[in-house]
Amino acid sequence: MTAEEAIQHHHIKLPTAPPKGGVYKPVVIVGNIVYLSGHGPYLGDGKYITGKVGANLDLDQGKQAARQVGLAILATLQKELGSLNRITRVIKLLGMVNSTPDFPDHPKVINGCSELFATIWGDDNGIGARSAVGMGSLPGDISVEIEGIFELA
Amino acid sequence: MTAEEAIQHHHIKLPTAPPKGGVYKPVVIVGNIVYLSGHGPYLGDGKYITGKVGANLDLDQGKQAARQVGLAILATLQKELGSLNRITRVIKLLGMVNSTPDFPDHPKVINGCSELFATIWGDDNGIGARSAVGMGSLPGDISVEIEGIFELA
Amino acid sequence: MTAEEAIQHHHIKLPTAPPKGGVYKPVVIVGNIVYLSGHGPYLGDGKYITGKVGANLDLDQGKQAARQVGLAILATLQKELGSLNRITRVIKLLGMVNSTPDFPDHPKVINGCSELFATIWGDDNGIGARSAVGMGSLPGDISVEIEGIFELA
Repeated sequence: MTAEEAIQHHHIKLPTAPPKGGVYKPVVIVGNIVYLSGHGPYLGDGKYITGKVGANLDLDQGKQAARQVGLAILATLQKELGSLNRITRVIKLLGMVNSTPDFPDHPKVINGCSELFATIWGDDNGIGARSAVGMGSLPGDISVEIEGIFELA
Repeated sequence: MTAEEAIQHHHIKLPTAPPKGGVYKPVVIVGNIVYLSGHGPYLGDGKYITGKVGANLDLDQGKQAARQVGLAILATLQKELGSLNRITRVIKLLGMVNSTPDFPDHPKVINGCSELFATIWGDDNGIGARSAVGMGSLPGDISVEIEGIFELA
Repeated sequence: MTAEEAIQHHHIKLPTAPPKGGVYKPVVIVGNIVYLSGHGPYLGDGKYITGKVGANLDLDQGKQAARQVGLAILATLQKELGSLNRITRVIKLLGMVNSTPDFPDHPKVINGCSELFATIWGDDNGIGARSAVGMGSLPGDISVEIEGIFELA
């Protein structure tokens, strides 16, 4: 199954690609490498999931926010590349959680995005290297921000 | 206009390249890719802009600090590469703001660096992918730290 | 002296490679570039060095924690690549310290890892570009997390 077929098969509904929030490009392509800008949990219509994980959001809600970041990333990649099928591998993700100083479960939160990508590109190609860490703050108090590097065919 | 001509044309004054603050190299070149170490808002003479954005610095002061980081980055690239003209593109920046837990405007802060790079390398090549996020703390309480990836001719 | 000979010569004892803590791969190889996932200060037997630097750990203890992260990284690279000799250069490290909001010495902490890598791969090839920054929180309250990019022969 291709990535686009997986989207259809699993009835995954993507938001519109998020608007740019500053002076940057959503993706930059260098050879066969795609550098993707940091994305938040965009819901469409200018709305994001906000609040600190460990205070305003619990672990499950944080994981849902990370999944929503993943959906926003897919929307951007589809828009910028034309098709998710052009991506052969997830190389690396940096998963940044807007969390309380004592929150311990950043990897479980970011799994919300990683599990989605495994559904789209498969358990091997959909899963790359990763760091999952806790930020002091994120833009507009979004709950999760993720940036990534992907490989093109 | 080349990058070096843009520096002259806009009367942009660079600080000296910042001294190394630890066991690392300012830049590492791999093929035609330049990996640049994290830089702070270096003013020259060993001085940096310090303080938390949202507490000690307001948004405009934070944006000026990010511009100063950009100037320090240009100084390092000029010193290490011989000329800013060797860089064909900004690929990616990671903009890290030393901010209060509820500060919301990291992208507007980091625009201070991104707008400078657009002036130097142009609105297309000077602007790359980017993340702008809030750190719990930064070395020596500097207000902003930015690392980057650039493309060489 | 090769990297593996340096391990022997300096009687450096590596922990077992740390277990995966989420949905990711320890390393992803793209051409001659190795992307390494974020690693914590793994002691073996499921144990990590934990606590905030500047509160629970002082600077020297933080630096020891960063060295322990370096040892864990070497264990992963040895396991995944077969031999540390396959690595020709450290390209870049992102050193993330779990620290108090006013902690100033992140570079000195991360030097604990960088000095270890200089011992393994030499003062030139063992030292790459780097950022050293302070996080709001880290998984399981580990004291330091480091991710990296390395070059293969």
